Amino acid sequence: MLTKETITAYFQQLQDDICGCLEAADGKGRFREDLWEREEGGGGRTRVIQGQRIAKGGVNFSAVHGSMPEKISRALGLEPGHFLATGVSIVLHPVNPLVPIIHMNIRYFEVQPEGGPPDGAVWWFGGGIDLTPHYVDVADARHFHRELKKACDAHHTGYYPRFKQWADDYFYLKHREETRGIGGIFFDRLSEEEGFSKEERFAFVKEVGEAFAPLYIYYLEKHRDDPYGAEELAWQKLRRGRYVEFNLVWDKGTKFGLDTGGRTESILMSLPPEARWEYSYIPGEGSLEARTLSLLRKGIDWINYKGS
Amino acid sequence: MLTKETITAYFQQLQDDICGCLEAADGKGRFREDLWEREEGGGGRTRVIQGQRIAKGGVNFSAVHGSMPEKISRALGLEPGHFLATGVSIVLHPVNPLVPIIHMNIRYFEVQPEGGPPDGAVWWFGGGIDLTPHYVDVADARHFHRELKKACDAHHTGYYPRFKQWADDYFYLKHREETRGIGGIFFDRLSEEEGFSKEERFAFVKEVGEAFAPLYIYYLEKHRDDPYGAEELAWQKLRRGRYVEFNLVWDKGTKFGLDTGGRTESILMSLPPEARWEYSYIPGEGSLEARTLSLLRKGIDWINYKGS
Repeated sequence: MLTKETITAYFQQLQDDICGCLEAADGKGRFREDLWEREEGGGGRTRVIQGQRIAKGGVNFSAVHGSMPEKISRALGLEPGHFLATGVSIVLHPVNPLVPIIHMNIRYFEVQPEGGPPDGAVWWFGGGIDLTPHYVDVADARHFHRELKKACDAHHTGYYPRFKQWADDYFYLKHREETRGIGGIFFDRLSEEEGFSKEERFAFVKEVGEAFAPLYIYYLEKHRDDPYGAEELAWQKLRRGRYVEFNLVWDKGTKFGLDTGGRTESILMSLPPEARWEYSYIPGEGSLEARTLSLLRKGIDWINYKGS
Repeated sequence: MLTKETITAYFQQLQDDICGCLEAADGKGRFREDLWEREEGGGGRTRVIQGQRIAKGGVNFSAVHGSMPEKISRALGLEPGHFLATGVSIVLHPVNPLVPIIHMNIRYFEVQPEGGPPDGAVWWFGGGIDLTPHYVDVADARHFHRELKKACDAHHTGYYPRFKQWADDYFYLKHREETRGIGGIFFDRLSEEEGFSKEERFAFVKEVGEAFAPLYIYYLEKHRDDPYGAEELAWQKLRRGRYVEFNLVWDKGTKFGLDTGGRTESILMSLPPEARWEYSYIPGEGSLEARTLSLLRKGIDWINYKGS
């Protein structure tokens, strides 16, 4: 049987593996680790890198447990009980503006209702991975979605279309009418419904987690020597500003974490090193910046996208 | 009788007066104005300055009206009706890190419930003014609160203590356990209760609006030649990051505006030109930065504060 210990240990190992890959890809930066404990139970390992290719990146593992705070049970619509929440959460902000920002998260949640039968735990997996280019590169977008579809299809052909749309809806800045980037996949509350076993759901989540490093390192390598100057750096800061807006205004995970007493510095490791806001900035007609904005919308079928 | 037309016209005039004072104080920058209209009724005048002393500042006037959107009536706990919301809203980010950031807002809201009697309108005033120094200057903080108390006391001696505490509670970053700055005053839903007339409430709101320009210009002038270097600029960016966190995570006005289809660029004029996030940054012991952090807490009686 798949236990929470197995899942937790897997996430921890995945964090180690990903950190190793990213240090090698960066070529210089090393992760700084902060171990932290939660008073009521559990804790985490926050790891942050400031390297020569990754300007600021966080790869966090956490596993918190204990009596479920009322705020959380109310938000999730669950009965009181003993809970466990564990996962790996990553955001990387690159130095080179031609390299995209990436985010990945996989998580497992379970709660054993008070006084319920020992096998009466409620559980689910959630997660997602999405790419936020400062400049949309159609070939990258096609490649990204093709790889995600491959990972999804290995588990269920219904996954990709459903989770791709979920990502379009989730990673969306309503006040800008912009998607955060070119999307990806997002999923939540994957449990035993639809005939899936816990093992099958876990196998899918593992696939997503293991897809992350090779995918990102591919873009990091592909664009590592792309030339850029002051103009691209200025645009990168404006796009990072949008990233801040999404995370602080709309991201449910961030808001929930800050509101329920999560570790602030671990949650906000997702914020960029520097961001810029310019009032009513409109990129020049026909510019690469304007083209990027025109591609930040929901429902683009990147795999079959015909533009270049 | 005090009409909504009188109040609206006053706010508009105040915007003009304040913009004139700030242009003179900046000595170089000029406000750029964007007029905008709201499809369902009303509109605004957004004015933004990028000057030699004010790095980025917004002085906005708006007056929107029409049938009250359901989202708004639900949020405010009001019956459907025809509403008017008008006000002046200001945030200024200075160039010199020794000059504080300032925010001021005064507003009037009324709603005429559907089918109610013509004199059955519900109305209130709200507003506030608060100072966010990058480096806390105790003499400035004392002066700021003394001036605010004077403005309050001219209308009711109960105002200052109540509104000072309200500001401490409102301008608070729960996830950092930090106040945004040294506070000020905050008030909302000031109506006819407690024996106040509408004219008396309006007189107080006008006092707050008119206190703004002389107060800020005093700090702008006082610190205009204070020397600073790379260290102060780096700290300024980190503090601006906190300002972003407050506005996007906790400020009810910002969230409400973005969520109910307000004009995004007008709302987000409050964000700084540049901000920075550094993972787990802790200023050196005994530094001016550490001292500032130690003073960002609720309940400091600045008027009688003995430190220097």
